[in-house]
Amino acid sequence: MKLARVTGTVTATAKDAQLVGLTLLLCDVVDGKGKVLEPAVVAADTVGAGVGAQVLIVTGSAARLPARTTGVPVDAVITAIVDHVDLG
Amino acid sequence: MKLARVTGTVTATAKDAQLVGLTLLLCDVVDGKGKVLEPAVVAADTVGAGVGAQVLIVTGSAARLPARTTGVPVDAVITAIVDHVDLG
Amino acid sequence: MKLARVTGTVTATAKDAQLVGLTLLLCDVVDGKGKVLEPAVVAADTVGAGVGAQVLIVTGSAARLPARTTGVPVDAVITAIVDHVDLG
Amino acid sequence: MKLARVTGTVTATAKDAQLVGLTLLLCDVVDGKGKVLEPAVVAADTVGAGVGAQVLIVTGSAARLPARTTGVPVDAVITAIVDHVDLG
Amino acid sequence: MKLARVTGTVTATAKDAQLVGLTLLLCDVVDGKGKVLEPAVVAADTVGAGVGAQVLIVTGSAARLPARTTGVPVDAVITAIVDHVDLG
Repeated sequence: MKLARVTGTVTATAKDAQLVGLTLLLCDVVDGKGKVLEPAVVAADTVGAGVGAQVLIVTGSAARLPARTTGVPVDAVITAIVDHVDLG
Repeated sequence: MKLARVTGTVTATAKDAQLVGLTLLLCDVVDGKGKVLEPAVVAADTVGAGVGAQVLIVTGSAARLPARTTGVPVDAVITAIVDHVDLG
Repeated sequence: MKLARVTGTVTATAKDAQLVGLTLLLCDVVDGKGKVLEPAVVAADTVGAGVGAQVLIVTGSAARLPARTTGVPVDAVITAIVDHVDLG
Repeated sequence: MKLARVTGTVTATAKDAQLVGLTLLLCDVVDGKGKVLEPAVVAADTVGAGVGAQVLIVTGSAARLPARTTGVPVDAVITAIVDHVDLG
Repeated sequence: MKLARVTGTVTATAKDAQLVGLTLLLCDVVDGKGKVLEPAVVAADTVGAGVGAQVLIVTGSAARLPARTTGVPVDAVITAIVDHVDLG
């Protein structure tokens, strides 16, 4: 999984029917200190994350395991709002 | 998923039979402000996108969840034409 | 698979129900001599690894083959604590 | 998918039995103008591509959807010989 | 698939039970002339490759198609010992 910071939202009218009602958030993948590693990953939200939140993104086929995205054509999903990253 | 800009089209005669009739668009993956992050991804179109459109690309096994690409050997599909990217 | 060094822990309250009880460790992917190749990969632990340990990370759908992560939305899992890397 | 240029061939005697009879081509992933983006991807050929041809490569689980590679341990397959890339 | 050079071995005692008995080799992904493209990929061996051998690595779900790794949590497997790379 990746740590990420939500930076914005993506809206679309002409889209696959299965994306209707799904919130798409623009995220930057970051390291434990917040440095951007990979910008502009679009992830479907399943935990009510908002812009500015630090989140956990899962990618690939795992992105369709949460109930909300089962069978939906997504490859990146937010599965947690991160409380704390403890750099041991 | 990734934001992308459609930059061209790809045509082929000698191809897997399951690709027949599928529109293949050349895209650059971009960030929220349009900066190119990854050039030249070829994606199958499922929403009628044209050259110049800002789109959403899904990759991996998710690319075969839209009805049009089920069972088709593709790993990247355009699933939406983006109306708006709001950088919160 | 990748060699990695565990660098910290990630905790979250608001999360997919299937992540409850799973230990999420922050890791840096390293080469055989410990040089960091890819920072900040979050992996679910299945072998009791702690901060500082050198581990083996598997990614993609393989991450859901260990019993502990079957059906869980994870894309990276620690499957071994490395004893020794022998550079032949 | 990716655009690629076939640059050579790969031969092996000691190999997984399911690779027997499969042509393995060495390819460079290129952009729409032929600039190399990723060198040295080995792809199984399913359309009779030769060295120098511009081709379409599909990767991941999609690589096992063509009849010739179903169930075969490959993660990259050539599914088309590209006639034309039109940069709109 | 990728061309790779085996550079070492990885051993672990505390590991997923399904990894027991599997040889894990440390490899550098290389181009057709041997230049390192991606260091330190750990791959399960299924063809008796040794340190120094030039091999073919398959990644992702394909890594679990060889009989030896079916159902095993691996994402990279050596499926061939390369005899020859012919740069056309």
